[in-house]
Amino acid sequence: MAEEDRPKEEAQNEWAHKAWRALSAVRRQSPLIQCITNFVSMDLMANTLLAAGASPAMLHSLQEIPDFTPQAHALLINVGTLSDAWLPAMKSAAEFATQSGRPWVLDPVAAGATGFRLKACLELVGLRPTVIRGNGSEIIALSKASLGATQGVDSIHESVDAMEYAKSLAKASGAIVAVSGAVDIVTDGQQVVGARNGVAMMQRITATGCSVTALIAAFVAVDPLHALEATVLALSVFGVAGEMGMEMAKGPASLRMHLIDSLYGLDQAAVLSRINITSLS
Amino acid sequence: MAEEDRPKEEAQNEWAHKAWRALSAVRRQSPLIQCITNFVSMDLMANTLLAAGASPAMLHSLQEIPDFTPQAHALLINVGTLSDAWLPAMKSAAEFATQSGRPWVLDPVAAGATGFRLKACLELVGLRPTVIRGNGSEIIALSKASLGATQGVDSIHESVDAMEYAKSLAKASGAIVAVSGAVDIVTDGQQVVGARNGVAMMQRITATGCSVTALIAAFVAVDPLHALEATVLALSVFGVAGEMGMEMAKGPASLRMHLIDSLYGLDQAAVLSRINITSLS
Amino acid sequence: MAEEDRPKEEAQNEWAHKAWRALSAVRRQSPLIQCITNFVSMDLMANTLLAAGASPAMLHSLQEIPDFTPQAHALLINVGTLSDAWLPAMKSAAEFATQSGRPWVLDPVAAGATGFRLKACLELVGLRPTVIRGNGSEIIALSKASLGATQGVDSIHESVDAMEYAKSLAKASGAIVAVSGAVDIVTDGQQVVGARNGVAMMQRITATGCSVTALIAAFVAVDPLHALEATVLALSVFGVAGEMGMEMAKGPASLRMHLIDSLYGLDQAAVLSRINITSLS
Repeated sequence: MAEEDRPKEEAQNEWAHKAWRALSAVRRQSPLIQCITNFVSMDLMANTLLAAGASPAMLHSLQEIPDFTPQAHALLINVGTLSDAWLPAMKSAAEFATQSGRPWVLDPVAAGATGFRLKACLELVGLRPTVIRGNGSEIIALSKASLGATQGVDSIHESVDAMEYAKSLAKASGAIVAVSGAVDIVTDGQQVVGARNGVAMMQRITATGCSVTALIAAFVAVDPLHALEATVLALSVFGVAGEMGMEMAKGPASLRMHLIDSLYGLDQAAVLSRINITSLS
Repeated sequence: MAEEDRPKEEAQNEWAHKAWRALSAVRRQSPLIQCITNFVSMDLMANTLLAAGASPAMLHSLQEIPDFTPQAHALLINVGTLSDAWLPAMKSAAEFATQSGRPWVLDPVAAGATGFRLKACLELVGLRPTVIRGNGSEIIALSKASLGATQGVDSIHESVDAMEYAKSLAKASGAIVAVSGAVDIVTDGQQVVGARNGVAMMQRITATGCSVTALIAAFVAVDPLHALEATVLALSVFGVAGEMGMEMAKGPASLRMHLIDSLYGLDQAAVLSRINITSLS
Repeated sequence: MAEEDRPKEEAQNEWAHKAWRALSAVRRQSPLIQCITNFVSMDLMANTLLAAGASPAMLHSLQEIPDFTPQAHALLINVGTLSDAWLPAMKSAAEFATQSGRPWVLDPVAAGATGFRLKACLELVGLRPTVIRGNGSEIIALSKASLGATQGVDSIHESVDAMEYAKSLAKASGAIVAVSGAVDIVTDGQQVVGARNGVAMMQRITATGCSVTALIAAFVAVDPLHALEATVLALSVFGVAGEMGMEMAKGPASLRMHLIDSLYGLDQAAVLSRINITSLS
């Protein structure tokens, strides 16, 4: 190792130890995560949270939110299969979470695909999420608040192009903003951190993006005062599980299985040797 | 074997033969099971029923119930992702099932989590389910009909603590009541039977509890006059599949796969050697 | 090989090359497929489309259809968990697809099970789908437009019995009609083609039928002028993936995983050696 790599190596090492401590805290505390999410993702999302040691609750009824949301340790809202029947519950839950001092995380799936969806996402951003995670297209659409930047739910922008838009959105909204891509980037508007774990085939499994956003909610739930850090760590831990799963996978369906198994079994040695996080600002 | 273990051994053996006959009847008759269930569980529940040889129908539209429910051999109602849009269909289906002399099974997911949910569950209990299956928290909440006993959908009470509450609920409702736990207990208010098959990791897979309740509906469908017995047998057969799956699993996602494969392939030898049922009263 | 088998062999070979070209086109163009489908199938359907190289979008909100449907390359409508809340969106999307010159495919799940469902399916057929795919019971029910022919979602008629009904429905509706069974048959009312790939255990996995209908939409999206051919090819490619998956499977759940992995990894040699399509008219 060259002399000049020492500080970088030390920073990596510090991130890796933080990741292990965060995952251990989720396993120990088993935070209750309320998920109001799209129909496609419910199964994998619940299994992701369970594999990480958290306690998922898929509960979206407007009548139940006043009783339930204040009990949850964090809230996840994902607009994937948005409808006008569900939107009031999303807004109400976001308000109850904020009033109860609980963190909540927004996944603005396909934010720019339609006018109805973009408006709904902007209204939710106005309710002050703790974290917003999307792909490049979604974050750019939200940041521009203009139509047409998203083709379906798959990103047509690289996450690095989205960095400036992410910083703008973070500043405007007060949220931590995470952009998924070959390198995931996370920013509070000033600081930018890159999370480099993961494998490309994860994009060929539906709901991996949705599920990692729920994992962010679990990590923020156990460390709400360090939301940027918790977001970076959740993305990285999920990416490590994906890398380990990929070593056993023959395609996207077996990757999905091995990813969840790996997340469940993740030990300190794997976390410490694999975490790859770098400061980009 | 000690002399005094002979009768216990014989009782075990009798249960094991009953389990094999019940599973064979489900495979032969392929009962049509209407499921009105939560979104998270639909996939695993349908696959569980198919693997066991039953015919699932996820059909919840109020308009279709008068035509369809009387055709089904049993009905499963699960309130996991309850909403006021679905509740009328749940009630209507329960009424049509009862009027048609068909058994129906209630899974009161997170019954005590909110006032809306507890009220809905109590209304459904009033429509005379054949079987109610929940975890300890849910059964206690229903039995106490009071708020706050359930944290999300995961149980915070051991099933054995719930035994007295289960007996009270069975007496009050006229239903067979099953409580999941390290040992599953099943009671009609007098008799109590313990089903000991299964592995702890099944709780780290979403919707296994929901799915075994649907399997109960299939077993009761082919033997409606012996609902207590059918309930015990369904819980045990599912537990055996879980045990066999666990021998091949590396984590919760591979357990889920191997559990379903094992349920599909379950043969007489495995059933006879593994079933572990004991009388607790 | 006997002399008289040469032309049959050559026809087979031609179909196999077409199948490879069609799959390659889906992978290259990654068509955006809007799916308005039942809750049970969303996960496997999205993963099927992703594994084939297409881009799924599960989007069903009435408010979003005017913006979104014209952007999609094809539309899939599946009535599995039909409700009056979703039916207007299904109709609106079908109309927008037709107006935009985009193909759309109908999966009339359990069409004859209830009066409400049959009426809804007939209304959708009236909106001129490009392709209708169902099992024998469903196609017969639609063709007869009479109640009672469907038990749940599982077929009680062999696909070959349904051939005449399929031809009638194709003539009456102007759609390509596909009937799943031991041999899948596809007809435009005159020509009938049989697709013989696949394995029986695929029927023991929920949503395989739904998912192959979505794959038909993807194949038609990249070759809308040859909808009969695209339908046959999609059914065959999915069947080949099932056959390859079956070689590794121990039951329905592992078959499901290996099927998706095989679809993802399908190469030219496997397609050319396995495709089994024959003219039946």
